[in-house]
Amino acid sequence: MINPAWIIQKKRDGKELSEKEIRDFISGVASGQVPDYQATALLMAVFFRGMSLDETVALTRAMLESGQRYDLSDVPGAKVDKHSTGGVGDKVSLILAPLAAACGIKVPMMSGRGLGHSGGTLDKLESIQGFDVKLTYEQFKAVLKQVGCAMIGQSETIAPADKKLYSLRDVTGTVECIPLIVASILSKKLAEGTDALVLDVKVGSGAFMKTREQARKLARALSQVARKMNLPCRALLTDMSQPLGYAVGNSLEVAESIAILRDRKEKDLSSADLRELTVQLCAHMLDLGKAARNLSDARKLAQKRLADGSAWNVFEQLVSTQGGSLEQVRDPSRLPRSARTLTWDAKKKGYLGRMDTEAIGRILVELGGGRRKASDSIDAGVGLIFHKKLGGRVVAGEPLVTVHAPAEAQGGPDLDALRARFEEAVEITGARKPVPKLIFEQIG
Amino acid sequence: MINPAWIIQKKRDGKELSEKEIRDFISGVASGQVPDYQATALLMAVFFRGMSLDETVALTRAMLESGQRYDLSDVPGAKVDKHSTGGVGDKVSLILAPLAAACGIKVPMMSGRGLGHSGGTLDKLESIQGFDVKLTYEQFKAVLKQVGCAMIGQSETIAPADKKLYSLRDVTGTVECIPLIVASILSKKLAEGTDALVLDVKVGSGAFMKTREQARKLARALSQVARKMNLPCRALLTDMSQPLGYAVGNSLEVAESIAILRDRKEKDLSSADLRELTVQLCAHMLDLGKAARNLSDARKLAQKRLADGSAWNVFEQLVSTQGGSLEQVRDPSRLPRSARTLTWDAKKKGYLGRMDTEAIGRILVELGGGRRKASDSIDAGVGLIFHKKLGGRVVAGEPLVTVHAPAEAQGGPDLDALRARFEEAVEITGARKPVPKLIFEQIG
Repeated sequence: MINPAWIIQKKRDGKELSEKEIRDFISGVASGQVPDYQATALLMAVFFRGMSLDETVALTRAMLESGQRYDLSDVPGAKVDKHSTGGVGDKVSLILAPLAAACGIKVPMMSGRGLGHSGGTLDKLESIQGFDVKLTYEQFKAVLKQVGCAMIGQSETIAPADKKLYSLRDVTGTVECIPLIVASILSKKLAEGTDALVLDVKVGSGAFMKTREQARKLARALSQVARKMNLPCRALLTDMSQPLGYAVGNSLEVAESIAILRDRKEKDLSSADLRELTVQLCAHMLDLGKAARNLSDARKLAQKRLADGSAWNVFEQLVSTQGGSLEQVRDPSRLPRSARTLTWDAKKKGYLGRMDTEAIGRILVELGGGRRKASDSIDAGVGLIFHKKLGGRVVAGEPLVTVHAPAEAQGGPDLDALRARFEEAVEITGARKPVPKLIFEQIG
Repeated sequence: MINPAWIIQKKRDGKELSEKEIRDFISGVASGQVPDYQATALLMAVFFRGMSLDETVALTRAMLESGQRYDLSDVPGAKVDKHSTGGVGDKVSLILAPLAAACGIKVPMMSGRGLGHSGGTLDKLESIQGFDVKLTYEQFKAVLKQVGCAMIGQSETIAPADKKLYSLRDVTGTVECIPLIVASILSKKLAEGTDALVLDVKVGSGAFMKTREQARKLARALSQVARKMNLPCRALLTDMSQPLGYAVGNSLEVAESIAILRDRKEKDLSSADLRELTVQLCAHMLDLGKAARNLSDARKLAQKRLADGSAWNVFEQLVSTQGGSLEQVRDPSRLPRSARTLTWDAKKKGYLGRMDTEAIGRILVELGGGRRKASDSIDAGVGLIFHKKLGGRVVAGEPLVTVHAPAEAQGGPDLDALRARFEEAVEITGARKPVPKLIFEQIG
């Protein structure tokens, strides 16, 4: 094995690491032969020096090969997954997985938990009583065959090197680094056994990538590395300058997803962006999986399967097969609820002009609905319901959001302080500002 | 305590850390509260972002305060130490400590071991049978009072944060970083209780700093931080483009030092540069310690005490007080000797034009006289005796060096391969090239 200190020095000096150097280092990280203190020194050197395409491919492969790789070849049909880089109110997966399955492809979906301002699909699913995201390999395949989609978390055997490096990155300031993000996402997606991948790369105040330029860089790197790893892949750059839909908070987001799956509209609340984005992402999955003649047909099929209740049927099957409560999803008022609600009202009239969406995500964390660190537990019932979207007209005194808050208790959230933070995060302008496009670029 | 991850991120983003942030982080490193994997991430971020003067002062202070600080105020007289940034054949301390003591100042010297291509004073001293470099605080003070100088290693209680960070730097590619070097040197020198410090900053092929510009930067940073820490300090930039004197190897260097202390000249071998540098450094120590009216008087005093045998008398006292064999130092032929000697001869005539002195240091490591890693043991008897200095005339076939090698054995050094490396490292030129000045700049 090559001396890990030399590998660190080489990267530190801006030289390109060989595939063998990367493989040796990463397998050493997974086995514990390379101590954590050398791993984090390399991560920081990569943060400053970056990685070439070849290096990123080698890193992805090394992390993939550190663990088990699921073989889904005996599951009939095209397997296509979707991955989002994370945002606020992003409950797309909950609607998309059953919808795409209803359109005839298989969706083997391995998701994460929320951390920091950004939510996680697993947490949302677990707000449904009994829903089990920890399936074995065999169970995962069985659900996928039977239901058409399966939704699980990253098991211990999948990319253990990524698991270790991810937790180290989180506490050493090395999260925001494109080659490390790319290898982390793609090693897991390759390990779960999908045939193709649609990437939803978020841009804006609620995304990790705040500018289009950064997001474009990430999307390009993801699609280049995926291509080198023989994983057909398409990336959409999509807007995260406001929460998707109207709900932010775990069970509230499940309820919003169910309303879309059942084609029900809630009075005075708008899920139009969420519905449209889900249909578009589904169309790209069908197109990549060759389950439609072209994108336009794919889009029509997705619309139809959402409207005719087939996606809802698959969702019901998914929930019951993975042990979740059908009573709760059929009657979302039975999902976990917070102890009290209140509204934060507009102080002046005008238009909703700008949102600091990351700050919104952090307000959810303060309410107890997210995590500061990975070991925190969360309160599924709390959250925010937005009565306005960007560009919407606001009358002074009308509610901007309904807050679902925990019961008053020692050590509980300071709602006055959170309201002040909310008012900082939301701007009401005299003139109506243009609203960003929902999907503004396709890469790959 | 401030979250260590935030401190890492702040430095990563190029912002200046506060004194409290640095103190919290370093005391956390010393106590183990900050794990090694966060320490190395910060070290690498500092490698890329550097540190301001204030930050470096805060780091030095935090490392100093992580351990015990010796109080030498009850030892009468001015206490002045010398520190070298390390080189090949640099046995100055062995002559200088007794010489400066013989001139009337006290020299509390805490030294290191050799690592990589560069030698260490402790290893040289330990080639004298029985010489004990592990004195307690009380023993150290007693020897200093009685002999005028004392020579020890860094105890467990001195700057433990530095000890930990130094060993981490060694394996994470973060050694060559000026603020980290400065804080490491000065925290130890401040802890040993010296009143003033002369720095010998080496430049050239055998030094860590290969260019004058780099060495000047280091010397300036050292003298600025020392000033802020109220430690009078003077730095000399000195030549390390060839080994100092003629001997490279532990007991061979002790023997060369003794020859100078006894004012004896070895036939056909030149210690002129070593002798001159020692006298100059001594003069600066006397000047800083106000033991002479001016530098010129100081120089004359040093010359005199070397020539009249007083420095040799102090050396004898030092050796016997610290438990070393007087028989060996009085008759250096009794010092550890290698099993065999051979010569590497000049292949052509000309002048000694250039030496890769780091490569010379690495040949010593291969012979067994240095360490690849800190836990390696060393062979005190092996080494190289140089018959030529830079600029010297060379006749084809005459010996360039005499090699003191271990007995032939399985796994022993491959002398043919080492000879080839030596020939690579030494250039014989047709015309005589100018020889670099021994001391080319004074800072502070």
